[in-house]
Amino acid sequence: MTNEPLAPWQWPEDRWRNRVNKVRAGKSLTPPWPDNKRCAFALSFDVDHESNELRDGAKSLSRLSWGQYGQRRGLPRVVALLEKHGVTATFFVPAVIAQLYPDDQRAVRDAGHEIGIHGWIHELNSILPPDDERDVMMRSADMLEKILGVRAVGMRTPSWDFSDATLSIIREMGLLYDSSLMADDDCYELLEDGERTGVVELPVEWIRDDAPYFWMSRFEALRPHIGPKDVLDIFMREFEQAYEEGGMFQLTMHPHIIGYRSRIWIVEELIRAAKSKGDVWFATHEQIVRHAATAL
Amino acid sequence: MTNEPLAPWQWPEDRWRNRVNKVRAGKSLTPPWPDNKRCAFALSFDVDHESNELRDGAKSLSRLSWGQYGQRRGLPRVVALLEKHGVTATFFVPAVIAQLYPDDQRAVRDAGHEIGIHGWIHELNSILPPDDERDVMMRSADMLEKILGVRAVGMRTPSWDFSDATLSIIREMGLLYDSSLMADDDCYELLEDGERTGVVELPVEWIRDDAPYFWMSRFEALRPHIGPKDVLDIFMREFEQAYEEGGMFQLTMHPHIIGYRSRIWIVEELIRAAKSKGDVWFATHEQIVRHAATAL
Amino acid sequence: MTNEPLAPWQWPEDRWRNRVNKVRAGKSLTPPWPDNKRCAFALSFDVDHESNELRDGAKSLSRLSWGQYGQRRGLPRVVALLEKHGVTATFFVPAVIAQLYPDDQRAVRDAGHEIGIHGWIHELNSILPPDDERDVMMRSADMLEKILGVRAVGMRTPSWDFSDATLSIIREMGLLYDSSLMADDDCYELLEDGERTGVVELPVEWIRDDAPYFWMSRFEALRPHIGPKDVLDIFMREFEQAYEEGGMFQLTMHPHIIGYRSRIWIVEELIRAAKSKGDVWFATHEQIVRHAATAL
Amino acid sequence: MTNEPLAPWQWPEDRWRNRVNKVRAGKSLTPPWPDNKRCAFALSFDVDHESNELRDGAKSLSRLSWGQYGQRRGLPRVVALLEKHGVTATFFVPAVIAQLYPDDQRAVRDAGHEIGIHGWIHELNSILPPDDERDVMMRSADMLEKILGVRAVGMRTPSWDFSDATLSIIREMGLLYDSSLMADDDCYELLEDGERTGVVELPVEWIRDDAPYFWMSRFEALRPHIGPKDVLDIFMREFEQAYEEGGMFQLTMHPHIIGYRSRIWIVEELIRAAKSKGDVWFATHEQIVRHAATAL
Repeated sequence: MTNEPLAPWQWPEDRWRNRVNKVRAGKSLTPPWPDNKRCAFALSFDVDHESNELRDGAKSLSRLSWGQYGQRRGLPRVVALLEKHGVTATFFVPAVIAQLYPDDQRAVRDAGHEIGIHGWIHELNSILPPDDERDVMMRSADMLEKILGVRAVGMRTPSWDFSDATLSIIREMGLLYDSSLMADDDCYELLEDGERTGVVELPVEWIRDDAPYFWMSRFEALRPHIGPKDVLDIFMREFEQAYEEGGMFQLTMHPHIIGYRSRIWIVEELIRAAKSKGDVWFATHEQIVRHAATAL
Repeated sequence: MTNEPLAPWQWPEDRWRNRVNKVRAGKSLTPPWPDNKRCAFALSFDVDHESNELRDGAKSLSRLSWGQYGQRRGLPRVVALLEKHGVTATFFVPAVIAQLYPDDQRAVRDAGHEIGIHGWIHELNSILPPDDERDVMMRSADMLEKILGVRAVGMRTPSWDFSDATLSIIREMGLLYDSSLMADDDCYELLEDGERTGVVELPVEWIRDDAPYFWMSRFEALRPHIGPKDVLDIFMREFEQAYEEGGMFQLTMHPHIIGYRSRIWIVEELIRAAKSKGDVWFATHEQIVRHAATAL
Repeated sequence: MTNEPLAPWQWPEDRWRNRVNKVRAGKSLTPPWPDNKRCAFALSFDVDHESNELRDGAKSLSRLSWGQYGQRRGLPRVVALLEKHGVTATFFVPAVIAQLYPDDQRAVRDAGHEIGIHGWIHELNSILPPDDERDVMMRSADMLEKILGVRAVGMRTPSWDFSDATLSIIREMGLLYDSSLMADDDCYELLEDGERTGVVELPVEWIRDDAPYFWMSRFEALRPHIGPKDVLDIFMREFEQAYEEGGMFQLTMHPHIIGYRSRIWIVEELIRAAKSKGDVWFATHEQIVRHAATAL
Repeated sequence: MTNEPLAPWQWPEDRWRNRVNKVRAGKSLTPPWPDNKRCAFALSFDVDHESNELRDGAKSLSRLSWGQYGQRRGLPRVVALLEKHGVTATFFVPAVIAQLYPDDQRAVRDAGHEIGIHGWIHELNSILPPDDERDVMMRSADMLEKILGVRAVGMRTPSWDFSDATLSIIREMGLLYDSSLMADDDCYELLEDGERTGVVELPVEWIRDDAPYFWMSRFEALRPHIGPKDVLDIFMREFEQAYEEGGMFQLTMHPHIIGYRSRIWIVEELIRAAKSKGDVWFATHEQIVRHAATAL
């Protein structure tokens, strides 16, 4: 507050109006689902592995080993489960992780999944200078393309940390979509300073993320504070109501969080529940966004 | 403690006595419920939306998008649910939110609900200078009246943050009631410095609030740390015992917290349980206060 | 660590040995229970009310109102429940609270319960200078005697915060027992610097305390993070196994925590379970200590 | 960050590659289990008692008494339970605790259990100067040998805090194994700077540790935040899936955490479930490591 002459309750009207309008949900993009499907089912995995710890300075060998678990055990379990049920999903991969494990990413691509941008080293956009943010995002997209041979069309900001510069960089890069914001249950068009951008937001939510429930940080107060059965209950309620409403069910997970023996079954239960409906569209984020964009 | 020559264990008796008496519960206001009803059922929704983040400086676009979820999805779900069951409730709305979404507030009013004061931009009263607190509270009441055409009769302090000046401002404004303190299960008269004020308190409790259970703050240790079934269990026990005692069941919720697919059902279950009793009075806070005030 | 030339891993042996021996559990005091009872059942209530907030400087009127809830609603519910089942318990009361509500304490005494010392204003002993600690403890004991006409024989340190001076003050005061430490499930004799003191410890545990599960602190990360059913499950397992072992089941509660509509039933379920055994000794802390002391 | 000219997103490639390679999982060591067993069941107990508090400066007598509970009640319960079911386990003991309670350690040894190194006073390796870490680890191994007459072959770093120097010290000491890292579900060979070390890692996980669920710290936000039934559910799922996969189930516990009346049953339920399979290998960490090492 030191450089802030006015406290928020003293702000003039245009200040809070402009701030709310900086990046904002516009038109809801809810065309009927293809092939008479009633509901869309969109799984995503943020393949962070060691990058969380690298981003924080990589002091802890313990946490680096946790990250490696994601690569050795978590990701294979996730990929095998998706293959077992014939479900495609979207994997957001920091460029450093793609370079550490390029064969993993190619195998994911070859299995029919989408790979999206997830920053360079899981940096927090809001503490980067805008030029650095632009630079690392460009580098990240190029590196993924170099490794995979395809250009990513969508991005998820690391830690869903969307800076004031992020949307203009997305537009400059010509991306189809972002998946980091949370103003709706369904896709929507992003507005920047009140103007249409043509960029689709495929929204996320902490409620539908494995990390808030299961994260462990030894020297903070973060613990895996509810059990896997309760997490399944939450995810299932989100799905069942999405189905009732004919909307989209989107989930964010991480191989080094969900990929444990005591947790991976949650994903399988969700897939089974969705399969049993008979009219659920299992799709990558890109597929959903391309479909939603027809309503722009 | 730097400006504090005496530690609390050294305080003279009048110091702790005066402090306890500053604002305090007086007479219990428990006339029989109207129409031979056994129990009162008082739902309230604090329509904070983006104002939590604005109050904190509005740095995070992610949290602003979370607030917008409250407006796009949360509030419509809440209003539709209340309409479905024919239940009226009270909505406390910060003045900035009322200005951002005036049509929403008018629709809520037109549906028969009460709208109460909830500060200007969800400011924390206890860190405002008293003159600023008085000014924003006056401005907030005027703005709500300008938008809605009716003068609010009650207030809930944002974050239930009741300053040393709050009660005298309430009295100056001639409000019927406050709903931010927690000294009882039933309505009571507020005493200021030991004297009667005629102001009714309709008490709240963190136990009967959705935020303590479901709040998420990425860079703090706050997480949605119990599941929705457990939250329903707590609320239901509060209601069932209120019914047993012939008292009041009061609940505080927020569209951007309770309004999710995996949570909104909690409110419906509570309404159903109360309806099934046959002798529960569904009322706005204002209705309950006007009734309670007959016992002043 | 600024005044500490040696880190703990560099300490000489006598340093850690002396520290461990400063205050320590000695002889287990486990005579057979009287009247062929198999298990002792010892409920205690720390009647803190407003004193937690007073101790912290009393800035928040909201938290003072929470404390008053303990007096208006919590304590009456607790006392009525105990009377309903004919169970006696021990109430530890800060002297400031006893002065604010002397009639409450006399009514508790008249109902056959024990009242013990719980500091002056719920101060933290470990941050008091030893002379101040001694002074407030003496004042507290005198004040309780003045109000109640009986001299307390036991003490529970506020927040179980047992300073280096506490035990010597207890001995100087000639108290029979302390109930703030946790080295055993059963009563034991306290050793000071390796020597017997004749003071009985009736041990507590955070596991058998309502506060760790239900505490709420708006501006910290403390929340009521598990549901009442899970708390009952924990308490019941502690009791059932105490019964199996023929030991003591001790519980610490607070009127402003357990005394809510959604929680008070936990105590009743425990009492019912214990009553149904047929051979459980419901006793005050003093009764148990006087019995245990026969094994000194 | 003060001495850090480059932020992580600016690091050159060799910096993050070298950091990830500092200590890392190499070859998976998964020979078939002996005697046609399908799954290995490896219980471990970190016998920390008072050493957690000593490590932090030993200010709190309350927490020292908690530690003593581990010695008086927790450890005897654990040992009796293992004896009842004929299961052997591994106990990691800080040298200071071994000196405080040498008879306990000898009794554990005589019951057929393994005793491993767990630091001197539960120090955090990552804040020790490397020479101090080397010194205390050497002292710890010598002290255990002096008390027990056998040389420990494995180590668990206190708090799983594995410093940059830890692995080279392990190698210098000629230890067979470490059990502090978490890159896999099964044993693996540790690589240091990309080179094989011959040291086996028997991996741990916070998911399979009692402390993250049950820890209590009065003046932090750490609480026992899920109930024992939920903890059993997590452990059981880890075990059942380990059995399905034919892998290893490893668990880390602490006498002063798991050894309470309301928790010890969790261990018994796990043992019963494993026994009922008929083809589970109950083994100490050393036994498993010696077997795994045949695949090096």
